[in-house]
Amino acid sequence: MRIGVDVGGMSIKFGLVNEKYEIVARKVIETHRNTQSAEEIVERMAQAVLELLDENGVKQEECDGIGIACPGTSDPKTGVILYSNNIAWENISILEMLRKHVHIPMALANDADAAALGEVLDGAAKGRENAVLLTLGTGVGGGVVINRKIFSGPLKGGCELGHMVIVKNGKQCTCGRKGCLETYASATALMEEAREAAAKYPDSLMNKFSENNPEKINGKVIFDAEKQGDRAAVEVVDNYEENLSIGIANLINIFRPEIFILGGGVSAQKEYLTDALQRKVNDMCFGGSLGEVPEIVTSNLGNDAGIIGAAYLQMEE
Amino acid sequence: MRIGVDVGGMSIKFGLVNEKYEIVARKVIETHRNTQSAEEIVERMAQAVLELLDENGVKQEECDGIGIACPGTSDPKTGVILYSNNIAWENISILEMLRKHVHIPMALANDADAAALGEVLDGAAKGRENAVLLTLGTGVGGGVVINRKIFSGPLKGGCELGHMVIVKNGKQCTCGRKGCLETYASATALMEEAREAAAKYPDSLMNKFSENNPEKINGKVIFDAEKQGDRAAVEVVDNYEENLSIGIANLINIFRPEIFILGGGVSAQKEYLTDALQRKVNDMCFGGSLGEVPEIVTSNLGNDAGIIGAAYLQMEE
Repeated sequence: MRIGVDVGGMSIKFGLVNEKYEIVARKVIETHRNTQSAEEIVERMAQAVLELLDENGVKQEECDGIGIACPGTSDPKTGVILYSNNIAWENISILEMLRKHVHIPMALANDADAAALGEVLDGAAKGRENAVLLTLGTGVGGGVVINRKIFSGPLKGGCELGHMVIVKNGKQCTCGRKGCLETYASATALMEEAREAAAKYPDSLMNKFSENNPEKINGKVIFDAEKQGDRAAVEVVDNYEENLSIGIANLINIFRPEIFILGGGVSAQKEYLTDALQRKVNDMCFGGSLGEVPEIVTSNLGNDAGIIGAAYLQMEE
Repeated sequence: MRIGVDVGGMSIKFGLVNEKYEIVARKVIETHRNTQSAEEIVERMAQAVLELLDENGVKQEECDGIGIACPGTSDPKTGVILYSNNIAWENISILEMLRKHVHIPMALANDADAAALGEVLDGAAKGRENAVLLTLGTGVGGGVVINRKIFSGPLKGGCELGHMVIVKNGKQCTCGRKGCLETYASATALMEEAREAAAKYPDSLMNKFSENNPEKINGKVIFDAEKQGDRAAVEVVDNYEENLSIGIANLINIFRPEIFILGGGVSAQKEYLTDALQRKVNDMCFGGSLGEVPEIVTSNLGNDAGIIGAAYLQMEE
């Protein structure tokens, strides 16, 4: 048995994962980033881990590892969360802190990295050795698996696939640069573009489907309107897919993975999204018909990918 | 003893490489792409290999391997050159053909991949495990070394770092896309921009240094004029370095290598180039001061990097 932990901005999810990569028991704790110190949160995490084991009759020595998936920048080698915006942590030695309470081998990884590993172990990339994953959510996260192991580079900072400039002098990114893939391919970017288009075209179905409340314009509203041929929505989706394709083709030219996985909110569109992307990307990859273009698929573990991948990180005592 | 072979458009270079990564003997044959078949060229290659061994008193069974570095797209697993523009080859099973004449373990790699490995083994990245190399020449080649091994992805097509779009809808690339790094960061691109600027500004020192012959405007002319503060040259170099920095920062965010190496014609500017790039790139990489930014250096094996790297590819019988 192993434990996978998925650290989010509002809550931390725990899963007890068996040898078949099944989550056999779960636990969730809420976090309050403004009122709790890192020490307090880690103490509650330790308590949750011990309860999860206890409630399922698993002794500490029977648990092969606890893996923690955390958004932002982590240093897997030292077990330090360098910076995580979601939970407002900076330079937190989370494994060292956790080891004061729990005596089980541990590991730390970026959340998209853990999700990519989860998908390779038992998800959309099952049976493959190499995969690239992009999560299309608030931002664009990226995970790379090479020979069934997470690749995050030797230096601190990790693989930040979303922070690849695809439009020189393009939209301002939170990382400081302009034109990063994240500013065009995140769910946030899609919704921003859609809200602008909906405001510009009052007749757009996006307004109807959102009851004229821009706050209600989400991925579903946008794609539902697009599927009915709504001009504003078609333009927004086309543009979004064009930009995302540029990023995917760049990464295929760089990694030539066996499979390319999309996760996060936008990936709920499944084949409807990936079919359109595949057509565009096939024409973009280097070498044309002489090269091999991987299949683009959506995550099939969804939010569990991070927990399962985290549970199967390489643990250290 | 091993043999490294560097296949170029006009000639093929052979080096006998010892255990200290020294090239102890060399041979060059000229190729005539329009009048020679692949079979003829491979037969001459085999002859050159046997002569090189013979002239240096090395028996075939004492040679641990022959590695071939070839520009374009190769499939290292099958030993097939899928496409090489320089030598006008398509789908050439070079290793199979060579094995008819020579009975030594062999391997095939892309030339930039081999150069990256050479630099890690005994060049600018000696002692490192992970490096990324860009060659700034006719095009922009790329090589990635992870854990002292070339990484070229599991699918056919290889790592084409130069074919990453950095300017959406930018300059037309030979690969079919628009705005690839190659169209902005190759030596060809630098010279094109300089020729345009020199034509626009007749007073530019670039005209003086090239004796008013645009054909003579090369990297040296451009940087010599820039170092003297020539406005047109300063603008060209600034722009070039800005675009190259975007590509380098993208790749650092993706690979976080221990070191970033520049090869090819433009890298002759050594520290003058890398100092300027390092300043720009440091501000661009994700995570700011919380991440680690690798040192940017120029190749120190130059044209020998490919031969040395090729000689130390993983050979197969």
